[in-house]
Amino acid sequence: MTANDVQFGVNLDVTTYSNGKRETHNPPGRALPLVVWDYYKNGCSLRLLNPQAFSITVWNFLSVLQEHFGSMCGANTYLTPAGTQGFAPHYDDIEAFVIQLEGKKHWRVYNPRKNTDVLPQFSSDNFSQEAIGEPILEAIVEPGDVLYFPRGFIHQGDCLPDTHSLHITVSSYQKNCWGDLLVKLLPAALQVAIEEDVEFRQGLPLDYLDYMGMQNSDMDDSRRISFIQKIQSLIKKLAECAPIDIAVDQKAKEFLHDCLPPMLTKAERAHTVHGIPARWENGAVQDTDVQMERGTLIRLLRHGIIRICNEGESCLLYYTTDNSRVYHKEEPKYFEIDLEHVDGIEFLIHSYPKYVSVDSLPCESLDEQLALAMFLFEKGLLLTMEPLTPA
Amino acid sequence: MTANDVQFGVNLDVTTYSNGKRETHNPPGRALPLVVWDYYKNGCSLRLLNPQAFSITVWNFLSVLQEHFGSMCGANTYLTPAGTQGFAPHYDDIEAFVIQLEGKKHWRVYNPRKNTDVLPQFSSDNFSQEAIGEPILEAIVEPGDVLYFPRGFIHQGDCLPDTHSLHITVSSYQKNCWGDLLVKLLPAALQVAIEEDVEFRQGLPLDYLDYMGMQNSDMDDSRRISFIQKIQSLIKKLAECAPIDIAVDQKAKEFLHDCLPPMLTKAERAHTVHGIPARWENGAVQDTDVQMERGTLIRLLRHGIIRICNEGESCLLYYTTDNSRVYHKEEPKYFEIDLEHVDGIEFLIHSYPKYVSVDSLPCESLDEQLALAMFLFEKGLLLTMEPLTPA
Amino acid sequence: MTANDVQFGVNLDVTTYSNGKRETHNPPGRALPLVVWDYYKNGCSLRLLNPQAFSITVWNFLSVLQEHFGSMCGANTYLTPAGTQGFAPHYDDIEAFVIQLEGKKHWRVYNPRKNTDVLPQFSSDNFSQEAIGEPILEAIVEPGDVLYFPRGFIHQGDCLPDTHSLHITVSSYQKNCWGDLLVKLLPAALQVAIEEDVEFRQGLPLDYLDYMGMQNSDMDDSRRISFIQKIQSLIKKLAECAPIDIAVDQKAKEFLHDCLPPMLTKAERAHTVHGIPARWENGAVQDTDVQMERGTLIRLLRHGIIRICNEGESCLLYYTTDNSRVYHKEEPKYFEIDLEHVDGIEFLIHSYPKYVSVDSLPCESLDEQLALAMFLFEKGLLLTMEPLTPA
Amino acid sequence: MTANDVQFGVNLDVTTYSNGKRETHNPPGRALPLVVWDYYKNGCSLRLLNPQAFSITVWNFLSVLQEHFGSMCGANTYLTPAGTQGFAPHYDDIEAFVIQLEGKKHWRVYNPRKNTDVLPQFSSDNFSQEAIGEPILEAIVEPGDVLYFPRGFIHQGDCLPDTHSLHITVSSYQKNCWGDLLVKLLPAALQVAIEEDVEFRQGLPLDYLDYMGMQNSDMDDSRRISFIQKIQSLIKKLAECAPIDIAVDQKAKEFLHDCLPPMLTKAERAHTVHGIPARWENGAVQDTDVQMERGTLIRLLRHGIIRICNEGESCLLYYTTDNSRVYHKEEPKYFEIDLEHVDGIEFLIHSYPKYVSVDSLPCESLDEQLALAMFLFEKGLLLTMEPLTPA
Repeated sequence: MTANDVQFGVNLDVTTYSNGKRETHNPPGRALPLVVWDYYKNGCSLRLLNPQAFSITVWNFLSVLQEHFGSMCGANTYLTPAGTQGFAPHYDDIEAFVIQLEGKKHWRVYNPRKNTDVLPQFSSDNFSQEAIGEPILEAIVEPGDVLYFPRGFIHQGDCLPDTHSLHITVSSYQKNCWGDLLVKLLPAALQVAIEEDVEFRQGLPLDYLDYMGMQNSDMDDSRRISFIQKIQSLIKKLAECAPIDIAVDQKAKEFLHDCLPPMLTKAERAHTVHGIPARWENGAVQDTDVQMERGTLIRLLRHGIIRICNEGESCLLYYTTDNSRVYHKEEPKYFEIDLEHVDGIEFLIHSYPKYVSVDSLPCESLDEQLALAMFLFEKGLLLTMEPLTPA
Repeated sequence: MTANDVQFGVNLDVTTYSNGKRETHNPPGRALPLVVWDYYKNGCSLRLLNPQAFSITVWNFLSVLQEHFGSMCGANTYLTPAGTQGFAPHYDDIEAFVIQLEGKKHWRVYNPRKNTDVLPQFSSDNFSQEAIGEPILEAIVEPGDVLYFPRGFIHQGDCLPDTHSLHITVSSYQKNCWGDLLVKLLPAALQVAIEEDVEFRQGLPLDYLDYMGMQNSDMDDSRRISFIQKIQSLIKKLAECAPIDIAVDQKAKEFLHDCLPPMLTKAERAHTVHGIPARWENGAVQDTDVQMERGTLIRLLRHGIIRICNEGESCLLYYTTDNSRVYHKEEPKYFEIDLEHVDGIEFLIHSYPKYVSVDSLPCESLDEQLALAMFLFEKGLLLTMEPLTPA
Repeated sequence: MTANDVQFGVNLDVTTYSNGKRETHNPPGRALPLVVWDYYKNGCSLRLLNPQAFSITVWNFLSVLQEHFGSMCGANTYLTPAGTQGFAPHYDDIEAFVIQLEGKKHWRVYNPRKNTDVLPQFSSDNFSQEAIGEPILEAIVEPGDVLYFPRGFIHQGDCLPDTHSLHITVSSYQKNCWGDLLVKLLPAALQVAIEEDVEFRQGLPLDYLDYMGMQNSDMDDSRRISFIQKIQSLIKKLAECAPIDIAVDQKAKEFLHDCLPPMLTKAERAHTVHGIPARWENGAVQDTDVQMERGTLIRLLRHGIIRICNEGESCLLYYTTDNSRVYHKEEPKYFEIDLEHVDGIEFLIHSYPKYVSVDSLPCESLDEQLALAMFLFEKGLLLTMEPLTPA
Repeated sequence: MTANDVQFGVNLDVTTYSNGKRETHNPPGRALPLVVWDYYKNGCSLRLLNPQAFSITVWNFLSVLQEHFGSMCGANTYLTPAGTQGFAPHYDDIEAFVIQLEGKKHWRVYNPRKNTDVLPQFSSDNFSQEAIGEPILEAIVEPGDVLYFPRGFIHQGDCLPDTHSLHITVSSYQKNCWGDLLVKLLPAALQVAIEEDVEFRQGLPLDYLDYMGMQNSDMDDSRRISFIQKIQSLIKKLAECAPIDIAVDQKAKEFLHDCLPPMLTKAERAHTVHGIPARWENGAVQDTDVQMERGTLIRLLRHGIIRICNEGESCLLYYTTDNSRVYHKEEPKYFEIDLEHVDGIEFLIHSYPKYVSVDSLPCESLDEQLALAMFLFEKGLLLTMEPLTPA
């Protein structure tokens, strides 16, 4: 808080839950330490949002997890004074992993109350204690413990009278269910079907408004049955022409925009373009002459940092390395690639984590192989097995 | 043109087609007769758009047709000088009926050139003569003749050297195919499925981005097959829960907005609220006391002028009688109705064109029956078999 | 109301004022006679807005008045049942002329309550009876009487117990004061001054923020005095370079957009382009050959129907004849004119109402004279002394 | 560039000027060192925009200058290869100070070409060599030299054949002339005049459109003279009621938004709220108890970091300390202050740079004095002469 520009309501929430009432106490403006600690000493919980923007450890941890989950990972940190509770019982629209860091916390977890709350699309409002029944799990977590709440499970946590609690909650799988993919897929599938299958372009029956619609829904009319069967048969036909790979790439594109950039170790940096010691010194540019050879061994910096997507006639390469640690602070990052480079990039993707030599890239010539490798290296997307050294 | 505010480009187009080139010659502003006739005398075709706004006959004709088609009917009128052609060969996105009024016209009609042009969604650009091949129909139409081009058939018409042509073209079935209904139905069906069927809310596989998407489309991986089958099975499930009647009502609502208002004859007016002689005279209101009895015989003014649609919790009655003769000049017209009036209104819709007595309406009491009948009568939606007369 | 589409809240207001409370009772939608008369019989006042759109007499009257006032004239018609009052005491932002048509009305007029209410820019809220003091005028008006309230005078009118009242109120001079012209003039004057006078472009004093502004307003500092004198001297300089004619034309342009179109008598129409008997008959165009001669006598149709305005490099002629009787239903109407026609048009404007011969127009040649005269005639802006007859 | 996210076109421009042609060569995306140095080695100039966001030295220097100028100070850094020129001759809308850092540069400065280019409002396009005549100043600058171009002076600089050039250009006084203040002042002055002086609310003459405006500008009519005199007299009246302090505060408010935040030395920080060692340690909050006494000596952190502005009924304190080093990245920062604190804050502003004791603040009680001092201290706006130490 001292060094960083932490804003109440943006990066930090001050909350209480007592006597069944959940309240937020954020003042406007920047959160300065004296003020924040004063709230804490008065029994308020502090929720630090997106600690990945402030902590390199959290950034690294989440960027590795997101690769594993194929879905954005977020986090919040919670500091709760002894003997208090900061939040009302509720469920979230994400899978949650609570990692206890300091102190202890007493947790109660409850079943979803009805079928439509199982694996829900949206987070709940706050529940009253009466509404949630008996917990299915009750536990006190201590530093090093991890607690997992699946999406939709109601939960609440409070501090024991004699000790505070500090934990981080990692979340993932927000809007990442089959239905979310179908939201992207169905309009595209219908468009393909209309363009390619004349049955979708045939006119509706002249009289369909006379037997379909709410005002006719109680009619006993064979035309209704035929109409409904026709619609059902068309929907089933859609399954055959759905452009699934294209819809997956739309989701992938969003995921790459959501992603944290990878966190590089100093050793890793030395093997990327960031390790080249090019600089301005003594009134001149130094050490910029680096070159790959046919045998230079390369690989992608990380699995999942790039994605090839078709966009109309052209082919775009989306990538995560220039994203910000602050969610969506940067626009989606991509560049257009030559169609003859697609095979080479796919080869690198599928070879990961193995190193391959430049001349093994499926390109038309060694010049093309070197050009592609150097281009991806300069963009910061490749590691070389040995650091490239200036001539 | 003398009495009405006819605007070039809005109500009237001035066109030529000669030496394979189609041109529009609209000057800006209001079309005054001297200027328009000058274009005509110089060989230009005149296309009067939406004659239903200027001619009662056309209005009446189209308003009857739209009821029959369950889809908006439009019209244009074409006046072409002898020995000229006004338009290049093309096809339209509507069913077209050409009715010859004066003079003669030589028409040529051609097959769609490829499967995806059959029953097309969108009109074509202009074709060159070379591109369209041999006509499948060639005919000279004379006053009283009607020519029908199905959606997608290429056509061109030109005048004989010695006689001009005046015809009206009636169109219908724009955006009225099964695909257009599915555009409304599928998002609603998916929303229902996600809310009601947990299978749609289950998370996507952790690793699906590694084998799905364009960059993986050549992979030989059993996970791809399973993923595709899962998607296809979910799409087929959609067929079962699709809210078809609700989607039909969305289309019906748009149709009622598109509709021309009904054209009433003087005799018909006498049987509606417009026939009540209420007026201001001699410093006082005269003849406003009209009442229905239990035995008053009533019916809807026209089939298709109202539509019951559910909107969230409430029930709305859309109607066409306050529409303008100019397309979409008025917002969609509707009022909310009491849920206990729904049965009575459905009864009137399904009884049409028979008259029914007020006390046969399925309402809870005679008071309710009279209230509903009087309400619809005052809105101008009902005919009484006998004109209501003031007390 | 029977023939026209009168909408509650748009064309008709239903109001009451009783026990010191003013209420509006507009239902939604179209105003049908039975419903409207029912309100009236229950003691409601009816205010018909913009009767000029429905009555040719009112249209003609207002179009003549607007020429006289150089400012838009509007009107409302008020029908009030015996023994009631429709509106609370208030003042308006316009000059008002009440013309009694039927029955009688009892009026009370009050002085503005404070200096800033004299000739106000905005209408007042409703006043309570206590707030307005004693009337300075109290009168009963009868058919044929006219009552004038200057802008800002508080007024209220109620019906005698035994007779209703019908009157029309004509308004003018809304936003037509010196300040309204200065709102247009000052930004233009400042822009000219900055471009032309380097004193306006000189930098502000380095330290002005230290002695100017609210936090320094109590400082006794000679720099404050100099700064204020400098600003005052710059403002006074503005007076010299203010482009007054250009600002007046901006107001004129708005006025022409606000204007009603002129109402032509049948006799007048015969002398305009609308009198030419051009028509479609027997399959051919008839009677379109009309021509002016050098001696044809012409004049503007009406004073004030056109206005020449410079817009950047080009010269536009704004005109009112294609306006709608409904306020601002049409966009501002204008066309670009050749710079060599400006003198001819100014000559016609300044000659009005005298007829002048075509060859007296200050143009370069007879051809130009005929072209200009015929152009304005075809646009419907000129009268010929004798009707033009087809060859 | 290695550590920071430098974007082409946002933070860095790559340019050339040769054979009279100025070109920009920015590729899309992030500027990585290898690519940038490659451009430089090929003869391109590099312009690093807003070095204050990357260099603490520049930030500090500009933040001190802006206080002195009362106007935002910006900067760009230019690196030019030997024997090249990066930019075409042009003039800018700011006062420019060139500070040579490395190498040498040959500069030529030219007089404004016409009166309206003296102290211009807007920067010029690029000039050809032919258009600018002979320089009035020609010089070679070396490290440590400073060159000043007043607003509007045309200039160009190129490198000697044997040495590169690195310089920083500091700019100020953009949109900071008397005219810019009048743009804010005049609408407010007119609004005051209309509200307070009935002469501004009087109606325009009935017939003014007949003798004013372009079409009447050649008329010899005494009414024109009176009208013009009336307008001039009203403009002169405006000088008397112009709310100058309010308009200055509008400019001040914008200036505070434009400002860089002050750069604090480590020693200075120790005397502000940022020096309090409050922290989380051993599971508890440490060292947050700090208090002022009546004799604590305080002063504003910097002159010009706060500004009191009236906004309607309330009083806002704008401040610069939470601004970003990136221009306008943060919204304007302010908080509302109690009216009884205004005198105290003005006292602190006018006492700067002297320290004053808390009990010398013009507040109603010691409690108020302590509350105000502590409030400003916690916001980071005050220095204490001695660091406050926790109890």
